[in-house]
Amino acid sequence: MNKKLKMGMVGGGQGAFIGSVHRFAAALDSEIELVCGAFSSSPEKAISSGKELGITDRRNYASYEEMFEQEMLLDEAERMDFVAIVTPNHMHYPVACAALNAGFHVISDKPATLDLDEAIKLSKLVNKTNLLFCLTHTYTGYPMVKEAKDIIRQGKLGKLRKVIVEYTQGWLSEAQDESNKQAAWRTNPAMSGISGCMGDIGSHAANLAEYITSESIEQLCAELTSFVPNRLLDDDGIALIKMSGDINGILHASQVATGEENNLTIRVYGEKGGLEWHQQEPNSLILKWLNEPMQILRTAGNNTSISLVNTRIPMGHPEGYLEAFANIYRNFAQAIRAYQQGKDASPQTFDYPGINDGVHGMAIIEGLVKSHQSDEKWFTLNN
Amino acid sequence: MNKKLKMGMVGGGQGAFIGSVHRFAAALDSEIELVCGAFSSSPEKAISSGKELGITDRRNYASYEEMFEQEMLLDEAERMDFVAIVTPNHMHYPVACAALNAGFHVISDKPATLDLDEAIKLSKLVNKTNLLFCLTHTYTGYPMVKEAKDIIRQGKLGKLRKVIVEYTQGWLSEAQDESNKQAAWRTNPAMSGISGCMGDIGSHAANLAEYITSESIEQLCAELTSFVPNRLLDDDGIALIKMSGDINGILHASQVATGEENNLTIRVYGEKGGLEWHQQEPNSLILKWLNEPMQILRTAGNNTSISLVNTRIPMGHPEGYLEAFANIYRNFAQAIRAYQQGKDASPQTFDYPGINDGVHGMAIIEGLVKSHQSDEKWFTLNN
Amino acid sequence: MNKKLKMGMVGGGQGAFIGSVHRFAAALDSEIELVCGAFSSSPEKAISSGKELGITDRRNYASYEEMFEQEMLLDEAERMDFVAIVTPNHMHYPVACAALNAGFHVISDKPATLDLDEAIKLSKLVNKTNLLFCLTHTYTGYPMVKEAKDIIRQGKLGKLRKVIVEYTQGWLSEAQDESNKQAAWRTNPAMSGISGCMGDIGSHAANLAEYITSESIEQLCAELTSFVPNRLLDDDGIALIKMSGDINGILHASQVATGEENNLTIRVYGEKGGLEWHQQEPNSLILKWLNEPMQILRTAGNNTSISLVNTRIPMGHPEGYLEAFANIYRNFAQAIRAYQQGKDASPQTFDYPGINDGVHGMAIIEGLVKSHQSDEKWFTLNN
Amino acid sequence: MNKKLKMGMVGGGQGAFIGSVHRFAAALDSEIELVCGAFSSSPEKAISSGKELGITDRRNYASYEEMFEQEMLLDEAERMDFVAIVTPNHMHYPVACAALNAGFHVISDKPATLDLDEAIKLSKLVNKTNLLFCLTHTYTGYPMVKEAKDIIRQGKLGKLRKVIVEYTQGWLSEAQDESNKQAAWRTNPAMSGISGCMGDIGSHAANLAEYITSESIEQLCAELTSFVPNRLLDDDGIALIKMSGDINGILHASQVATGEENNLTIRVYGEKGGLEWHQQEPNSLILKWLNEPMQILRTAGNNTSISLVNTRIPMGHPEGYLEAFANIYRNFAQAIRAYQQGKDASPQTFDYPGINDGVHGMAIIEGLVKSHQSDEKWFTLNN
Repeated sequence: MNKKLKMGMVGGGQGAFIGSVHRFAAALDSEIELVCGAFSSSPEKAISSGKELGITDRRNYASYEEMFEQEMLLDEAERMDFVAIVTPNHMHYPVACAALNAGFHVISDKPATLDLDEAIKLSKLVNKTNLLFCLTHTYTGYPMVKEAKDIIRQGKLGKLRKVIVEYTQGWLSEAQDESNKQAAWRTNPAMSGISGCMGDIGSHAANLAEYITSESIEQLCAELTSFVPNRLLDDDGIALIKMSGDINGILHASQVATGEENNLTIRVYGEKGGLEWHQQEPNSLILKWLNEPMQILRTAGNNTSISLVNTRIPMGHPEGYLEAFANIYRNFAQAIRAYQQGKDASPQTFDYPGINDGVHGMAIIEGLVKSHQSDEKWFTLNN
Repeated sequence: MNKKLKMGMVGGGQGAFIGSVHRFAAALDSEIELVCGAFSSSPEKAISSGKELGITDRRNYASYEEMFEQEMLLDEAERMDFVAIVTPNHMHYPVACAALNAGFHVISDKPATLDLDEAIKLSKLVNKTNLLFCLTHTYTGYPMVKEAKDIIRQGKLGKLRKVIVEYTQGWLSEAQDESNKQAAWRTNPAMSGISGCMGDIGSHAANLAEYITSESIEQLCAELTSFVPNRLLDDDGIALIKMSGDINGILHASQVATGEENNLTIRVYGEKGGLEWHQQEPNSLILKWLNEPMQILRTAGNNTSISLVNTRIPMGHPEGYLEAFANIYRNFAQAIRAYQQGKDASPQTFDYPGINDGVHGMAIIEGLVKSHQSDEKWFTLNN
Repeated sequence: MNKKLKMGMVGGGQGAFIGSVHRFAAALDSEIELVCGAFSSSPEKAISSGKELGITDRRNYASYEEMFEQEMLLDEAERMDFVAIVTPNHMHYPVACAALNAGFHVISDKPATLDLDEAIKLSKLVNKTNLLFCLTHTYTGYPMVKEAKDIIRQGKLGKLRKVIVEYTQGWLSEAQDESNKQAAWRTNPAMSGISGCMGDIGSHAANLAEYITSESIEQLCAELTSFVPNRLLDDDGIALIKMSGDINGILHASQVATGEENNLTIRVYGEKGGLEWHQQEPNSLILKWLNEPMQILRTAGNNTSISLVNTRIPMGHPEGYLEAFANIYRNFAQAIRAYQQGKDASPQTFDYPGINDGVHGMAIIEGLVKSHQSDEKWFTLNN
Repeated sequence: MNKKLKMGMVGGGQGAFIGSVHRFAAALDSEIELVCGAFSSSPEKAISSGKELGITDRRNYASYEEMFEQEMLLDEAERMDFVAIVTPNHMHYPVACAALNAGFHVISDKPATLDLDEAIKLSKLVNKTNLLFCLTHTYTGYPMVKEAKDIIRQGKLGKLRKVIVEYTQGWLSEAQDESNKQAAWRTNPAMSGISGCMGDIGSHAANLAEYITSESIEQLCAELTSFVPNRLLDDDGIALIKMSGDINGILHASQVATGEENNLTIRVYGEKGGLEWHQQEPNSLILKWLNEPMQILRTAGNNTSISLVNTRIPMGHPEGYLEAFANIYRNFAQAIRAYQQGKDASPQTFDYPGINDGVHGMAIIEGLVKSHQSDEKWFTLNN
């Protein structure tokens, strides 16, 4: 093993949920170490969060601008290699731009930006700087999701017909009080963007459908709803979709599906068979066949290589969300090492979600909102 | 127990599937006996089928017209009490009219008729003759479906928000050959009506959603597809729906979901909780709550009385499809006995699907087809 | 179809559970009609029960002795063909002997008799009279149990190694009050025999293991317990077992497994694969393979013929306990018809449990009790 | 957060499975860093393994003896805090003794030693040195296992009656070839001890039963088998058990249950209810009640504090085996920090398996072998 890659972090301080998830994921394989951070938009909270995380004082920064400026001055052997952006959505774009302009690779929580315009501009900057950009569409990191993608790529299901992808949660079922920081920004358009539920989790569902099928959503017909009174953004959305390859389907997301936890599921049907995957039991992939018995593939079984390289332990030892997240980090870390050696480091080669996923994801979010506002049945995406 | 009710049957001869299902369902409780029939539109096949079923020669009729005529001439103690119609769809209406005009109660396979116009006319005839009409929406016969309806009626889920109902099969995944009699008429508009998949099973799904929630579908936005080349009717359909009570949802049915068996499932979410039922494991009803553990109710558990009166055996002894079907028959038989005693025998009182379900079901089928053909997002139902 | 077979019933009157189950099972296929009965040991209750069941007065008997005597006097075309015995255990033997001596075939609830001695004597009488005897080991009637047996018979699992069979219920978890008639006789040695739980449900579990594997339990090492104070018979038992064919395993039954319903499950492992079946979800048979994905076979799928002839409806339409029970009745009815035509009517040919299962079952119950009382590890069965 | 604890490792070099698992588990929470190691009994392989793991040359030791000697000479701020022993079983004892004698805390893979005598001696040494010892009974690290223990401790199931614990795998179903290093030593008495399957996984199952119930196995009646020809140790074992608190039950483990992965399950029944946990779906805990619906508790739900402090992410984000393993490491790390501050650091306080579990576990393994060899039914444990 080469020496560890050095990571800085923006956001993810005290009280944040997703920051610690990124840190678990980055730590698991002992390939990455967290060396610096600007952990909050509040300088005081940033500093106290960094202390708690054991960051050396001189690299525990009060702001991301300071961090990029100071890290650039460090010797290359000490300087951070990449930055993880784990702020609320409205800060993804400015922080990513600053990082790229300062010469750092970026791994960013999703969605890529606050709106489609920003995403297009960010895409141009990524291309211009020729640096690496990874979007943490975590669910594509699961071994059995990769197995599903590969089974379809090999044509085992035949020509595809249908995709039903659903992501239901219940944590916003009630009007939330002020104390829930997470809920507060998720339902605030200024921080979250033009969509609540669809922007947060509908985008994961759409990305999963596209990743597994290797096809794109092209048209949609959506109905978004705010079930909880006085909520400014949608907390629920249902949509008919048409994908490339003559596939049709359903995209469904809800954060007011009372009693649901984090129930992301996908079903894909082709002429020869169907498959089914449930994020809450992620180590099983159900295959249904035309005239043969149903099969259940399992993580670490006799699977394809793309699935196995994303598996850490033997069959029957369940892998979970953090391992899937760590796969995104590990694959991106390998891309960075390739980049440092002057090799191809593209998302295709190293199997991580890149800026194109980010742009298309924002186009879907925007499309869902526009379709909802329209009386016409079908809205066609341009990105 | 009173003496058994006497049943005649139209259709359901050799090679038919649903005829034998009706006979199992009618026989299970020893409350009904099959005394006569006109088991096929082919006189020869009708007679040979009746022989196989052990029907006395003189009541084994070559045509339904003959049957109604002859049975009317019999002594009331011998004459059949009601007729079961188990023909292809296009014969439901003429046979039902003939039966009602001859003075017999009718239990009919669904859909009620070939189109909405016929259904409205049939409804008028039912009302005019004041005879009883039952439509075999089998799935509403399951104990845990009745339990679900009652839980919602009691308000335990709070104000409802969403319904997702899906009915997926794979048996029409391939172009079928001539030998499959069932597939042949199901995909023939002259015998099946204007919709294939939606008419056959989408209508069951819609009825289930309405039965469980006690609300009605009012608007829909549908996309129907014929995936198998040269098929004349839809073999797949997806729709966004709006129901009374400000509920929105998804109605999804497919007969080309390769590898699926008879996968009817429903999920309902309200402000306080959600529920989930799967026809293929019908003895469990999953309840999900806001801040309490998930519960699983089971057939014959400490359930509500409406569920328990539709249960035959103790917990853990699985009841299946035939028992659900038999509940429709048994409830209708009890209604007939009440009618014979001059008492109220309505669908509401005896919990069986009636002609109103039939009319509304035809309106939904017609609405799905019209919505599919339209560029406007929402189609509003009138019936 | 020939005319219906005519059944008489002993026991199963008001308040009994298993009597109605036998009647549902006999009625389902319209091959058998209940023509007479002696439905209780109390003459008054017998008569009132028969009235409720719609039995003609002159064949509604006050005692089983009277029934056999009177039925013998009837014309053969009217006389019952066989008798169903659904009394508490202590009456199985005397009623079966009386029936056989009067010339009637017998279908009896299990266990066959009150003790092993009676079973051996009954076996001799069956052989002497050359009449048919069927024991309702219901669970062997499930299609997927038959599929499992056939898979093993074909050698698909390779040489067998292990069987784990378990039957857990919770309905006797508490000391029951007097009002529970079922619980009362089940825990009364005079009516139930030397074992409670093992006699009632352990015997089902053992029979299932032997049916599926086509091997016999030869040695056992048992620990029986009465968990509920003052209970006279075991309400729980666990045993190590050794079967013919060098199979070892576990036999476990409990009626005090609080919260369990009727949880009969079996797992069998061979050199090439394993299988698993759960009575509460009876339409799935799980197959696990050495280096291949797990498979799930389903009732009415592409199964073996022995499974399919015991299936009534298409895939995905769940069959349940009553259909399994009806398979026992139907197979026995077919054997009786063969007998009436002078053909082979053996349990092997018609796939129903016979008197040999009865004798061996009593030997197992006796063996479990003797092993429990012994300090030696292994008890060897002689029957 | 304090600075990271420093860990050394003995064993776990190239080709080993469990070494990497310990490293993942130690890394996840960023509380521990691997600073040195003696990764193999072969000096060359030890060095090359350490290089691969990125260990500094001067702390990449050729033998564990050298490691302990050299580390002792380092400054306390640099010196390792504890050693992880991940060798085959026969080296657990000598390495642990050497570590304790050199003054290092020990975390050891299980079983604690090769036999009971060693375990008793090791226990004395732990007590004499007053250092900390942790045995990685991983499965007790799962949140829902801790939830189960707490539910029972609170008396919610009432007085306990029964425990059925089973651990089935299929990976030794065939005679293995030489290339499988793992299989080679597991089936070699000199490296594995007197029992194969029971020593390896039966001991996990027994420990799980005792952890969840807070009771001890006191008597057992075992049958061990070597199903694969020429195998020197048992590859399968079944046992009746009696535990303190008048609990009886079953202990079952197999490594030749063809097709099973890592199927550890436990069921516990008390007077008021039962519970069920399956390691392969570890985030659900099933509760069954006397007259109430079944409940399913979920990781990160409204659980008890002991469960929640061992949970990292919100409901519906599945935690797996590595998270459970990391809980053992984290809890032990917290104990070491407490020890370093002069506070109570006992297994009871910090909820990690200690040397007493190790001694009792060896007594169970020895008891199972002795019971198997005996003709008497019950063998009584002394430790």
